[in-house]
Amino acid sequence: MSDKMNRRAFLGMTAAGAAGVVLGDLLGKAQVALPTNKAAATTTNETLNFYGTHQTGVVTPAQNFANVAAFDVTTSDVKELQALMKQWTEMAATLMAGKPLAVEPQDGAFPPTDTGEQFGLDTGKLTLTFALGATFFEKEGVDRFGLRSRKPAGLTEMPIFHKDSLQEQLTHGDIVVQACADDPIICFHAIRNLTKAARGVAHLRWQQTGQLGVKSQGTKRNLFGFKDGTANPALQDETFMKNNVWIDASDKDSAPWLAGGTYMVVRRIHMRIETWDQQTYSDQEEIIGRQKVSGAPMDGKAEFDTPQFAADAEGKVTALDSHIRLSNPRTGENSERERILRRGYNFMDNLDSVGRINAGLLFVCFNRNIQTQFESIQKRLTNPKMPDQMLAYTDTTGGGYFAVLPGVSSKGSYLGQTLFE
Amino acid sequence: MSDKMNRRAFLGMTAAGAAGVVLGDLLGKAQVALPTNKAAATTTNETLNFYGTHQTGVVTPAQNFANVAAFDVTTSDVKELQALMKQWTEMAATLMAGKPLAVEPQDGAFPPTDTGEQFGLDTGKLTLTFALGATFFEKEGVDRFGLRSRKPAGLTEMPIFHKDSLQEQLTHGDIVVQACADDPIICFHAIRNLTKAARGVAHLRWQQTGQLGVKSQGTKRNLFGFKDGTANPALQDETFMKNNVWIDASDKDSAPWLAGGTYMVVRRIHMRIETWDQQTYSDQEEIIGRQKVSGAPMDGKAEFDTPQFAADAEGKVTALDSHIRLSNPRTGENSERERILRRGYNFMDNLDSVGRINAGLLFVCFNRNIQTQFESIQKRLTNPKMPDQMLAYTDTTGGGYFAVLPGVSSKGSYLGQTLFE
Repeated sequence: MSDKMNRRAFLGMTAAGAAGVVLGDLLGKAQVALPTNKAAATTTNETLNFYGTHQTGVVTPAQNFANVAAFDVTTSDVKELQALMKQWTEMAATLMAGKPLAVEPQDGAFPPTDTGEQFGLDTGKLTLTFALGATFFEKEGVDRFGLRSRKPAGLTEMPIFHKDSLQEQLTHGDIVVQACADDPIICFHAIRNLTKAARGVAHLRWQQTGQLGVKSQGTKRNLFGFKDGTANPALQDETFMKNNVWIDASDKDSAPWLAGGTYMVVRRIHMRIETWDQQTYSDQEEIIGRQKVSGAPMDGKAEFDTPQFAADAEGKVTALDSHIRLSNPRTGENSERERILRRGYNFMDNLDSVGRINAGLLFVCFNRNIQTQFESIQKRLTNPKMPDQMLAYTDTTGGGYFAVLPGVSSKGSYLGQTLFE
Repeated sequence: MSDKMNRRAFLGMTAAGAAGVVLGDLLGKAQVALPTNKAAATTTNETLNFYGTHQTGVVTPAQNFANVAAFDVTTSDVKELQALMKQWTEMAATLMAGKPLAVEPQDGAFPPTDTGEQFGLDTGKLTLTFALGATFFEKEGVDRFGLRSRKPAGLTEMPIFHKDSLQEQLTHGDIVVQACADDPIICFHAIRNLTKAARGVAHLRWQQTGQLGVKSQGTKRNLFGFKDGTANPALQDETFMKNNVWIDASDKDSAPWLAGGTYMVVRRIHMRIETWDQQTYSDQEEIIGRQKVSGAPMDGKAEFDTPQFAADAEGKVTALDSHIRLSNPRTGENSERERILRRGYNFMDNLDSVGRINAGLLFVCFNRNIQTQFESIQKRLTNPKMPDQMLAYTDTTGGGYFAVLPGVSSKGSYLGQTLFE
């Protein structure tokens, strides 16, 4: 032990006094070769390209696991923030390529550059998606970084909707990073190492993991046991993405620097599992507005049948206050303009403080205009005069609104460059 | 809404007044055919057999996900407990076979028998392992179910070891169920439905999910970035299992009814991720006693080299208080007798109440005698005179000691039968 303490003290002095000196020889086995990763050596289907007009993780087919992390900025120096964005850009490209964060052999005298729990895993199709909250631009009336005038007009803090149970420590945030991959360790590793790199500039405010069935094909089910996302737009539908997801430089309710970005809405929706499980099969279907096993609409036979909201052969109709009917009344052009791109995950967080199963839906959606899309829908669902029946079985405890940065076009550019420069 | 209320009121009356009457015809679409599961139709590698001398989930190769749930018994009627064990036996066999819990078409007028979030998934190699805590036999001096005299001598409540930070709501429990599968939804679904069936007899006390890398081969890494389990006995080593894991009818420190069972130790070990990540590479290796990337011992070249605890070529030795040296000093027969079978999982539970990453190791091990095996090792690791260096980076917040019931030999038998009869 005393050897260790002495060595540590010695190193502390040396590192401070002579940064850059190679200490390996002094330390015996201090030079450590890092593993090369098979997936990184060749481009495979497992590796997604970090660079592009848009960020990944929006129209990328949903991987099986997610970790959404919100950060509070702790510095008041915009230059430090900008430097973090540059560092995160490099790290994100490296992580998505499945490479270790340290390319040189690791010097034993310093903390590992890469924490290492993902060594031996492939990339798991990792995507990292970076976004900014309204408080990044202005907090409690203060123009924190001289960027207030650049705040996108449509970016507000998420309001409290009817029946919301938002908890401060699970809500909002200056920066959000969404990590998605087919392995939960890969998501964790990415967020952990981005957090480590941000020390002194930003710290974690909240974090929420999510997961889909590893073994399922087709539309995944939520924890109410229903298929969730049947009516989601096809990810290949470029017209839809252009019209309803990606922000254009001319969008009045946005900001020109945000062109190629989008707005992200996160809602941590706790499901009252114990209460739901006491509802009858018929009531569960009426509440959702779909058939449980097949996912078909009440008046249809198969999952992808279009609901007509007409009476079926037995005279049964889809309730006006059923979840799918209020979400999307299918009234033509208006409903089409409102449509959002969802990317939801189940969460299963053990028990809550009163012993209930702490599980539900990590709702994530992307849209070009929060007010005319997500909020239009959400206000219908939470209208006190005729709320979504499902609200009786859910509590939304966290989340927020975030502006997803434009993609990083190529090496040398960085996340948020159009904002900072 | 008024239609629904009327129908519900009507059903309440009818069901109460004429239980068993088929209501389907009265209700239109109330008879719901349940999905058949592909995996259930044929026996595949994905399906493990529930029946046998021993329970599954002990020597079964670790699946990628786990959900360990502890229950408090709320009834005082041993007959209700026995009935629950019979019901759980049937459910466990059905769940492990990947079949829905309801075999008949579901009557819409009643809550679903199966909550349904796993429809469309295969079995994911699900195993369910049932065990009892000391409080099942005696709690606060009370012989709750007339079973006090049958308490295995070696089953105590887990004591508080040096530096433990046990939280009451994460520790102990009358019954524990360990669900393991290659899909987290399958684990969740099993625990949820067992919990639902236990209503009025037992309720959840704590629950802890765990996960290993989906994408990795070989020894999995823990969240310190080190391979964890290199020295674990081979699962095929039947001699080891006979000597060190399975309880024999003649074991003095156990109970004859527990023959074929084993003792399970659970420890929820929070890792101080932020602090660990500031330690140097060399110190991390010294603390663990292994090389980080390869997993080799300090004095070896490859992962499975046997540590000699000798000085290496550069004169560097494995610290006496390193984790692997204190865990297993390899002093011959004595060390061999102590050896336990580990089955650990990483956990990643978002942030804790003070904003730290709430992640670590869900340590699970099985052994034939807690006192001479797990506790011998644990007492060495937590000896205040020379504690495991790793203790400075961990906080154990929960877990417990449990007696794993003997296997259910065949259909018609049930979990705990040798105890109750």
